[in-house]
Amino acid sequence: MKNSNRPLDVVILAAGQGTRMRSTLPKVLHPVGGRPMVAWAVKAAQELGARSVVVVTGHGAEQVETALGGTGVTFARQAQQRGTGDAFLSGADVLPHTGDADILVLYGDTPLLRPSTLQALLHDHQSRGSAFTILTGELPDATGYGRIIRDEAGNVTRIVEQKGATDAEKAVREFNSGVYVMDARAPELARQIVPNSVTGEYYLTDLLALYRAAGAAAHAFKLDDIDEVMGANDRSGLAEAEAILRRRINTGHMRAGVTLINPDTNTIEDTVTLGQDVTVEPGVILRGNTRVADGVTLGAYSVITDSVLEAGVVIKAHSVLDGATVGAGSDVGPFARLRPGSVLGAGVHIGNFVETKNARLDDGVKAGHLAYLGDVTVGAETNIGAGTIIANFDGVNKHQTSVGAGVFIGSNSTLIAPRTVGDAAFIAAGSAIHDDIPEGALAIARGKQRNMEGWSRRYWGGLREKVSQKLPWLAGWLERQ
Amino acid sequence: MKNSNRPLDVVILAAGQGTRMRSTLPKVLHPVGGRPMVAWAVKAAQELGARSVVVVTGHGAEQVETALGGTGVTFARQAQQRGTGDAFLSGADVLPHTGDADILVLYGDTPLLRPSTLQALLHDHQSRGSAFTILTGELPDATGYGRIIRDEAGNVTRIVEQKGATDAEKAVREFNSGVYVMDARAPELARQIVPNSVTGEYYLTDLLALYRAAGAAAHAFKLDDIDEVMGANDRSGLAEAEAILRRRINTGHMRAGVTLINPDTNTIEDTVTLGQDVTVEPGVILRGNTRVADGVTLGAYSVITDSVLEAGVVIKAHSVLDGATVGAGSDVGPFARLRPGSVLGAGVHIGNFVETKNARLDDGVKAGHLAYLGDVTVGAETNIGAGTIIANFDGVNKHQTSVGAGVFIGSNSTLIAPRTVGDAAFIAAGSAIHDDIPEGALAIARGKQRNMEGWSRRYWGGLREKVSQKLPWLAGWLERQ
Amino acid sequence: MKNSNRPLDVVILAAGQGTRMRSTLPKVLHPVGGRPMVAWAVKAAQELGARSVVVVTGHGAEQVETALGGTGVTFARQAQQRGTGDAFLSGADVLPHTGDADILVLYGDTPLLRPSTLQALLHDHQSRGSAFTILTGELPDATGYGRIIRDEAGNVTRIVEQKGATDAEKAVREFNSGVYVMDARAPELARQIVPNSVTGEYYLTDLLALYRAAGAAAHAFKLDDIDEVMGANDRSGLAEAEAILRRRINTGHMRAGVTLINPDTNTIEDTVTLGQDVTVEPGVILRGNTRVADGVTLGAYSVITDSVLEAGVVIKAHSVLDGATVGAGSDVGPFARLRPGSVLGAGVHIGNFVETKNARLDDGVKAGHLAYLGDVTVGAETNIGAGTIIANFDGVNKHQTSVGAGVFIGSNSTLIAPRTVGDAAFIAAGSAIHDDIPEGALAIARGKQRNMEGWSRRYWGGLREKVSQKLPWLAGWLERQ
Repeated sequence: MKNSNRPLDVVILAAGQGTRMRSTLPKVLHPVGGRPMVAWAVKAAQELGARSVVVVTGHGAEQVETALGGTGVTFARQAQQRGTGDAFLSGADVLPHTGDADILVLYGDTPLLRPSTLQALLHDHQSRGSAFTILTGELPDATGYGRIIRDEAGNVTRIVEQKGATDAEKAVREFNSGVYVMDARAPELARQIVPNSVTGEYYLTDLLALYRAAGAAAHAFKLDDIDEVMGANDRSGLAEAEAILRRRINTGHMRAGVTLINPDTNTIEDTVTLGQDVTVEPGVILRGNTRVADGVTLGAYSVITDSVLEAGVVIKAHSVLDGATVGAGSDVGPFARLRPGSVLGAGVHIGNFVETKNARLDDGVKAGHLAYLGDVTVGAETNIGAGTIIANFDGVNKHQTSVGAGVFIGSNSTLIAPRTVGDAAFIAAGSAIHDDIPEGALAIARGKQRNMEGWSRRYWGGLREKVSQKLPWLAGWLERQ
Repeated sequence: MKNSNRPLDVVILAAGQGTRMRSTLPKVLHPVGGRPMVAWAVKAAQELGARSVVVVTGHGAEQVETALGGTGVTFARQAQQRGTGDAFLSGADVLPHTGDADILVLYGDTPLLRPSTLQALLHDHQSRGSAFTILTGELPDATGYGRIIRDEAGNVTRIVEQKGATDAEKAVREFNSGVYVMDARAPELARQIVPNSVTGEYYLTDLLALYRAAGAAAHAFKLDDIDEVMGANDRSGLAEAEAILRRRINTGHMRAGVTLINPDTNTIEDTVTLGQDVTVEPGVILRGNTRVADGVTLGAYSVITDSVLEAGVVIKAHSVLDGATVGAGSDVGPFARLRPGSVLGAGVHIGNFVETKNARLDDGVKAGHLAYLGDVTVGAETNIGAGTIIANFDGVNKHQTSVGAGVFIGSNSTLIAPRTVGDAAFIAAGSAIHDDIPEGALAIARGKQRNMEGWSRRYWGGLREKVSQKLPWLAGWLERQ
Repeated sequence: MKNSNRPLDVVILAAGQGTRMRSTLPKVLHPVGGRPMVAWAVKAAQELGARSVVVVTGHGAEQVETALGGTGVTFARQAQQRGTGDAFLSGADVLPHTGDADILVLYGDTPLLRPSTLQALLHDHQSRGSAFTILTGELPDATGYGRIIRDEAGNVTRIVEQKGATDAEKAVREFNSGVYVMDARAPELARQIVPNSVTGEYYLTDLLALYRAAGAAAHAFKLDDIDEVMGANDRSGLAEAEAILRRRINTGHMRAGVTLINPDTNTIEDTVTLGQDVTVEPGVILRGNTRVADGVTLGAYSVITDSVLEAGVVIKAHSVLDGATVGAGSDVGPFARLRPGSVLGAGVHIGNFVETKNARLDDGVKAGHLAYLGDVTVGAETNIGAGTIIANFDGVNKHQTSVGAGVFIGSNSTLIAPRTVGDAAFIAAGSAIHDDIPEGALAIARGKQRNMEGWSRRYWGGLREKVSQKLPWLAGWLERQ
């Protein structure tokens, strides 16, 4: 995404404690939109094409470093919490220091900052030949924020904190977001920051004066949407960030041709792709690496994670899918559960109270009701009766079952794995199948029926008192016998 | 609803493409509140008692005409998209032309326009003896809309588009909704519209000047609620219209004595009727021809379509009903699925993970757990054990089962259709019933139990390594043997 | 909570009809946040440490008195609806009359009034040595409300109703909430209220003038949050009150360290406790005496009532729990149903479509799929196969089953209660267990399998026509035979 020749290094400050989260989890690991807040900053940095990304950790450093393991970032630990200036230097210490890079400072708790905004900030910085550019926003009333003071040419001369501001300065509506892009001198200049006389902390904002003292001009780049720099400091802040992200993602899908019936009730992670003319009913939750093709309907209250739904699939209400692939034109649910390794061909029908796991169901397979299909392959057009159970577990191990094409499995059957059922076999309802079945054979494995006439009269007669209280029809019948 | 003697003809303009929908479905067929947008206009026209309703189609004409098949409207195709004036003429061409009718122009993409508003518009038109009445609204800032310019008497003299407006005209807050009611001269006058010099299109607004040139006065009728003329041009617009409709419908039910716990999460189509003291828990979806009697409770996240619930029924959370009838005082769910043809008597109990389809269950039948009841009639007070399956399918055909009254079906039984079970029969748990059962008989159809002592020691002994890893209690037991 | 030495008596006015509710239920019994509105007032009074609480009933008196039975309040019936003054006197008549108490007047339809606000009101009343203190609020425009008129010292001199107000009085933004705290003279003074000349009703507001005539000063105590005195007069008002309460409760949990993904979709009753780092997914409903320990995850759309969830429990989406206890580290769902008397040890696994009722499952029990476990105790580490049913019902009585530790119950088994299964027993899949099983024994109770080769060719051959229409693979297979 970056379009300049200068390398970009990013320092992400993520050492803060976040006491107001009241959590054993470090603040920056609290998720928004299914991803830890700090991971949003990492993602943004990487989408900018950053040469190196340093995450400065402190509170809960090990947890943060573990959570970001495998993302390719490097870590710097801030030994003591001595302010943003100190944190920045901790991070800058491990940067390449080639002397030609821009350095961008981001935060672990602003998950809404768009890569495109940062790209525009970088572009502004570079096209102006700026040494130090501040990302700013404007509020009707910026009370509490550091105000941006500009000279007549529009250059930034100072950032005034609330406490030291004059009335005129308090009236300024432009505020400092804390995001900066700086030229390669920043680490060297940051070493000149002196601790605040009151708090003893090193403030990164002091860099502005140091740049200016070094003869460089500082600029500001104003955000369109100040929500982007909203930091989440407590759980309400998390919920607000989640809501903003929800609207942003939902609007994107609606613009692209997806119908959302009641978008405020949906949760769609930004990793999910949705095709044209997909309909998302109320309360649907879509997570992870989920890919939904054109014309799919996602039924109300379905929860779908890491799944692939091909064109025209209909997921009915209250279905839960995780790690499943559903072939074109199949219908699933309501109350279906597809677990990892479920691979359904085209035109498959999965009905209510059916669970599949590690199950390959070829085209046209039907399992309409109350079934457990685990560790099994099923050939095309096989019909799986209501109540069918694949008994895949022996107490410690799982075993595999293979069912051919065109098989009819009668209702309430049990297939005791490992088992092989040949093509076009027929299993009588109520059978417990403990042997393999050859192609085209009928298997019966159930008891023979005996009817004992007159039995009910004696049975219910013995329970006559309770029957008369609770079962008036049956009491009448007993009378008539 | 109409209360004048003059006939009313309605022309619904529904030819537009709706590119911003990004859809293969024509814009006017996108649903709001469960009904294609254009169908709302048709419904409004018919509720007004219109003599004839013409829908002017263009983009996706065949789809639109198919979707409205059976509604009694006629269609006119606009050959080319040459503006609203041309579209109107296409429609007017197929009107009866009796010379005495009012003609109302509606649109296929304004689903929120209330019939009562149109009725008031018509009444105003007729009681003033107006020749041409415009439905207008007022906005704090009407930028972008055609402004209504009135003379001192309040008659409308012009409609000024944004582009040609003076500053004084731009300050006008009254805007043109595009809905007009006109006397029978409209088609004749519309033929005099000349194409716009810039776009080449024929604009229906030009009728105003033509009426005035013909010596007729034009009037405006102002809407109370401008949401009614909100057009939905993209999927966000659809979602907004849906939200407005949701609030409107919910408010109506609340006024009439229905409790909605969290109304923003419910979806209740306007075709649904709800009795007094009905309670609707969060997330309930009610669709189609659903009739809910007094005192019914609808559990959270239930999805109910085309069903009849009699007085005092309790639907528990997460139930899905479609085409079902539930008798007074019955309780259903949670996690129940009643499919079309399910007819439950009074005091029936359907519990979790139970599916019924084409099933008549008489008063007091109980099916509490994990059952499939398809193509079956069940007599009063019969108890259907957990795990019961009616095996109604032979691979290609469905068969019917008849179960009498006062029957006890033991758990995990299978009834292989077609089957008849007499009154007061008793089926032993775990039976696969493949013969009919006479009245009062006990049927047993299962294997006899054998216990093989000491077997577990050998079995688990053979799996000892895994047992010690995973099953500490069992490992200890093995040690003790 | 009360911190004064003077006793406090509370009169709750709850006699009104509430016609706009359009209900057979008295207005004050309509629930908000899971509790009848009047019960909120009772709860507030009791949290204030009131000596006696009188509820004045009228419309639906019996229903109200029944609903509040067991709360320790006393009741006074207002014989005729003759205004708030009369209602107050009905209640005051049954107060202790020790002459030293403060008397607080509350209402049965203001569920949002916080005990802490009332405590502050009482404190203000007592610390000022006030005789009569009015709880007031301030609105930008108080049209319709009684306005509070103060003298220069800030004492309240009059309450002016909308009708009789001058323009200057209409501009007053402070309004009367109707909540008063008064010294012990109130009943005596209230007897001097004369009926309104127009309506004939006795108005409690007239007490102000009577106190002043008696030489006492009246004061006002202003609310911070006027939502607290919002009365719910119709179902929309109920829904608004519910929404305000939802936000209040949710904010409290978020401040305390609970993550709510989409708080507007949750319903959490105020009786529920949630530990730190609990995550509540969208659409969760938590009711009654539910206690959730630290680190628990509550899956989307779960409905949990009167249940205890120990640390680290994971409830997956779409689970319904009622009266259950779930031990530390267990996981439940999706689509699980735990009914009253379900007591799960630590590390228990309950999967989809599993129902438990009156079931004690010891540590490490697994029941992953499609099972009904009723009236049963299960020892540690027992594995319950898919489709297992405990047949606990004989038509009129429930029977108990005992399953030992380390048992393996094969899939689709039926245990016909009453039954005892010894430790480490093994039940073959598909067995219907009708005898007890000794420790360590294998039990088999199913039919033996027979395979009848070539059968399918004949069967499907007989259905050839339908097969060729519907089952192309099988039709091809038939051809090949």
